[in-house]
Amino acid sequence: MSKHIYIYSPSSAVRDKAAFRRGVKRLQALGHTVEVDEAALSSHQRFAGDDETRLAAIGRAAASGAQIALISRGGYGLTRILDAIPYKAVAKAVSRGTEFVGLSDFTAFQNALLAKTGAVSWAGPSVGEDFGAVDGPDDIMEACFDDLICGQGEGTGWRLPARDGEAPTLRHVHDAVLWGGNLSVLVSLLGTPYFPGVDKGVLFLEDVHEHPYRLERMLDQLRHAGVLARQRAVVLGQFTSFKKVPHDKGFSLRTVVDRLRSQLKVPVLTGLPFGHVPTKVLLPVGAKVEMALDGRDVFMVWGHRDAHHGHHHH
Amino acid sequence: MSKHIYIYSPSSAVRDKAAFRRGVKRLQALGHTVEVDEAALSSHQRFAGDDETRLAAIGRAAASGAQIALISRGGYGLTRILDAIPYKAVAKAVSRGTEFVGLSDFTAFQNALLAKTGAVSWAGPSVGEDFGAVDGPDDIMEACFDDLICGQGEGTGWRLPARDGEAPTLRHVHDAVLWGGNLSVLVSLLGTPYFPGVDKGVLFLEDVHEHPYRLERMLDQLRHAGVLARQRAVVLGQFTSFKKVPHDKGFSLRTVVDRLRSQLKVPVLTGLPFGHVPTKVLLPVGAKVEMALDGRDVFMVWGHRDAHHGHHHH
Repeated sequence: MSKHIYIYSPSSAVRDKAAFRRGVKRLQALGHTVEVDEAALSSHQRFAGDDETRLAAIGRAAASGAQIALISRGGYGLTRILDAIPYKAVAKAVSRGTEFVGLSDFTAFQNALLAKTGAVSWAGPSVGEDFGAVDGPDDIMEACFDDLICGQGEGTGWRLPARDGEAPTLRHVHDAVLWGGNLSVLVSLLGTPYFPGVDKGVLFLEDVHEHPYRLERMLDQLRHAGVLARQRAVVLGQFTSFKKVPHDKGFSLRTVVDRLRSQLKVPVLTGLPFGHVPTKVLLPVGAKVEMALDGRDVFMVWGHRDAHHGHHHH
Repeated sequence: MSKHIYIYSPSSAVRDKAAFRRGVKRLQALGHTVEVDEAALSSHQRFAGDDETRLAAIGRAAASGAQIALISRGGYGLTRILDAIPYKAVAKAVSRGTEFVGLSDFTAFQNALLAKTGAVSWAGPSVGEDFGAVDGPDDIMEACFDDLICGQGEGTGWRLPARDGEAPTLRHVHDAVLWGGNLSVLVSLLGTPYFPGVDKGVLFLEDVHEHPYRLERMLDQLRHAGVLARQRAVVLGQFTSFKKVPHDKGFSLRTVVDRLRSQLKVPVLTGLPFGHVPTKVLLPVGAKVEMALDGRDVFMVWGHRDAHHGHHHH
């Protein structure tokens, strides 16, 4: 189904232009009409243009009328401009059917949007690193993206990794707001008006290049802030590309997760296929989800979301 | 003047035992009675003993009756145990004349203590990296430490670096609570009950191994949380040991500071000799200070602090 995809750059400058072009071509090859924002390849210091340029790009994405507004890449740039993002215009675009998709630094945008307007956006791929991957896009990611494009996505599922110990007990979760994203970026919203006040939600987290001691410090911050205990479940995605050091002496991601579980009554599920990895599902940030566990198999369903989008329901 | 110094390890395991021993010997050579906590060289994973061991060490430091309770080193370990630190016992020890001294990870302890009890502690050296430095301790650090030991420290001063542009306007500050420390660690308290609610204070910050984009993200978090605008002044110490990357293209610590100044009405002073550098002053976290600016010379005075300590006043 041919759709209109609007590509823009709200965060870091696109340095790998070859990957960007591959991504655009891939989306075109899938039959979509790809519109590239006029500032998508702008560069100012680390950023894809100065703050005004990137804010204007967000505004154009919101005004584009596209089915999908997709980020070129993540990086860094959105926390700088949280007090100037046109949240209402974005929420209006969402209500008219534009799905905002991205990850990593985009977590700031997504959760601030949720906090300010309640509008749903999608944790998912970026153009360069996903659609522009040298070996081609990941099949599962592309299938999930296609589901979103077609309005057919109703949920996702995965198997709890055996290495993470016994499956936790999970009572059937329903009517829970799904939220979260990149742990570092989400935690950088704590204490500000851009941190969503979600109670009894499902919080999903991933991160990249962060040593387990930093992951633990951030998880403890969420715990001490009372955020984790207020959720129905905490779902851990992929934590990748950190370097162990000799000083660790047995301290690891595993000990961090084990300790978190020992401290929380809330179930902590692992293995979500999302993060800075090729195989990623798309997740509706701010949508109500149901979640259940059958043995080691997790099912998450968001079939009842946003009737005004005209999507069908299960 | 011979004093009783109690050395303990609330954070990371001491790996450089030679530096630790040099530090202990240096303090002894200055004529002090140095008591080393029984668990000071303990090791569990990254930590100087497990959580219970380090909590017990803090309890022993508080019960020691020493004039100074000095950390062996920083690292990581205090944010894990913020909900179990015996704050009242520490505050009681402070009221009886024990000065708790440390930095880096110790920022969590100091600001949580301030939030929970109002007790004053000292941002200052650690045993290993300062007193145990291969080339011997820094003269200025040691003189400031001696001032604390003798109860004669009344303040500090420094010159604003010329490279940081025109000197900001600073109205005479008085009766302002001095607080802060390591930026990463302080920000890891935001949104939790361990973050001090200081209004009209003087906030000082330093950090190590953090790229300017991370420094900016943390400063923006404090700004978005309303913390910076509530202060009388923001004082930046030393930000060291980060690596620039080609992607920065002009984005730097300087641009971060310039932007912060453009966004805040509160004066931002730079050049404070404090941080992960040999030359560091000691700063009373939680004490009331006066601050004034004469040309590029900053004066900070805490002469009126804590009459119950028996220190003299100006």
